[in-house]
Amino acid sequence: MEALELVSSNKIFGGFQKVYSHESSELKCKMNFSVYLPPQAEGGDVKLPVIFYLSGLTCNEQNFITKSGFQRYAAEHGIIVVGPDTSPRGVKIPGDDESWDFGVAAGFYLDATNEPWAKNYRMGSYVNKELYDLILQAFGNVVDGERIGIMGHSMGGHGALVSTLRNPGLYKSVSAFAPICNPTACPWGVKAFSGYLGEDKCKWVEWDATELVKKYDGPPLTLLIDQGAGDSFYIQKQLLPENLVEACRSVGVPVILNLREGYDHSYYYISSYIGEHFAFHAKILKA
Amino acid sequence: MEALELVSSNKIFGGFQKVYSHESSELKCKMNFSVYLPPQAEGGDVKLPVIFYLSGLTCNEQNFITKSGFQRYAAEHGIIVVGPDTSPRGVKIPGDDESWDFGVAAGFYLDATNEPWAKNYRMGSYVNKELYDLILQAFGNVVDGERIGIMGHSMGGHGALVSTLRNPGLYKSVSAFAPICNPTACPWGVKAFSGYLGEDKCKWVEWDATELVKKYDGPPLTLLIDQGAGDSFYIQKQLLPENLVEACRSVGVPVILNLREGYDHSYYYISSYIGEHFAFHAKILKA
Repeated sequence: MEALELVSSNKIFGGFQKVYSHESSELKCKMNFSVYLPPQAEGGDVKLPVIFYLSGLTCNEQNFITKSGFQRYAAEHGIIVVGPDTSPRGVKIPGDDESWDFGVAAGFYLDATNEPWAKNYRMGSYVNKELYDLILQAFGNVVDGERIGIMGHSMGGHGALVSTLRNPGLYKSVSAFAPICNPTACPWGVKAFSGYLGEDKCKWVEWDATELVKKYDGPPLTLLIDQGAGDSFYIQKQLLPENLVEACRSVGVPVILNLREGYDHSYYYISSYIGEHFAFHAKILKA
Repeated sequence: MEALELVSSNKIFGGFQKVYSHESSELKCKMNFSVYLPPQAEGGDVKLPVIFYLSGLTCNEQNFITKSGFQRYAAEHGIIVVGPDTSPRGVKIPGDDESWDFGVAAGFYLDATNEPWAKNYRMGSYVNKELYDLILQAFGNVVDGERIGIMGHSMGGHGALVSTLRNPGLYKSVSAFAPICNPTACPWGVKAFSGYLGEDKCKWVEWDATELVKKYDGPPLTLLIDQGAGDSFYIQKQLLPENLVEACRSVGVPVILNLREGYDHSYYYISSYIGEHFAFHAKILKA
């Protein structure tokens, strides 16, 4: 097992918010990730569900753990929560820090095939293989590998949806706040996919939730999509939840779209509804 | 009335987290402060209680509103919450940015009398007169001036206690997270008071909660003090809650000291117990 280094540990709502670092073999750099261990994990004699949370553009592992208030709900439901960073760090590829929506802190949770990104920008395999397996091993005494869910925000909402749809059964529950639902059809996605995947659009559809759901052939899933109606990125058509909902309905995949009047794209919005998302996941993972 | 400039407004838990800036006459500089308007404030036909929240060393008005999760409880109880900054900003006094525990972001909520601080470092009068009056005026349609409480963290816990004890009746309820309880007897306080007040220790006791409570002669008060038992500043004797408790007991002022096993000095700790503090204030302010 890879060596984990404890970066920080803070008691919150009776459990512990921890941050670890490790050398990632997929990304070929040192990465931080967060783990919240709820009070039910103490003693290590019960196996608990896990939720992975994928953050959005410009974030690292800190935003979610300091701003969302999720720990209250994780403690109530007895759920372990894991939060990776949003891109490789410190690999210094030319151009990786020129944009806030590409390169550093903008890995889009995919495996790049285009140079110079293909060697390090493998956030898809990092989250769904390396980190997933690492959590099962390192926290095996308290993690129930059969009850793992995923959620995310914006670029991380895209990541949560794509991770679930590409890996049937890996995640039993999925939800997203203001996800990029149809990246092949929005400016953020076109920029990222052009850079990471190149110009062959056949590759793009393999990382687009709206396209993937049309071909989904795994265990039954209900997608929970949350969207602030006052979110400027929604209004600018970067997010396109209606496209995903239409695709789901065309193939009979259950989807819930909650539009929230007056809410924006920020953690103020996420914190207002993350309790509902934890209840949604808990109902599935603890059924 | 002074002109208020709206800096930001974000919907959260059905209400709005707002930040304003204004030109402070006490501090002679432009200052930010936060106001949370819970959903009950919409329409403006009911008068709601207010809680002032004073932040700790190194903070500005952002830390509390992004990290504590208080908005959930303010929305539940229907309480307006106001959060000032922690010192004058941008006045550029020599030495004001050399220490994290003195000068900028370390105003200690007192009125300096020592030069070169006396002109601007008047956070005591700023909070308890200028901002207090400004809130009553600018939000007069939704604020009940008879139901105002105060809380704070660390240096801001000191500020909450001292503001209450020096101004009997101004705040009907008071609580503090990990407050500096006896600044004349701890390194942070000695440094700050030497700088802001000079070497005459007779002036110091006028801004020390443990000293002030011995002479308190106002309306009945119960002090709620919260302290993480794993807080390194508590262990280093910067906070000294036991001294305040002893002083309270010597004069019969009711005090509750909640020691929280394993919790530190951070907002992870505050977020775990701020719900209890809102319930404490609500019980008094809504009685």
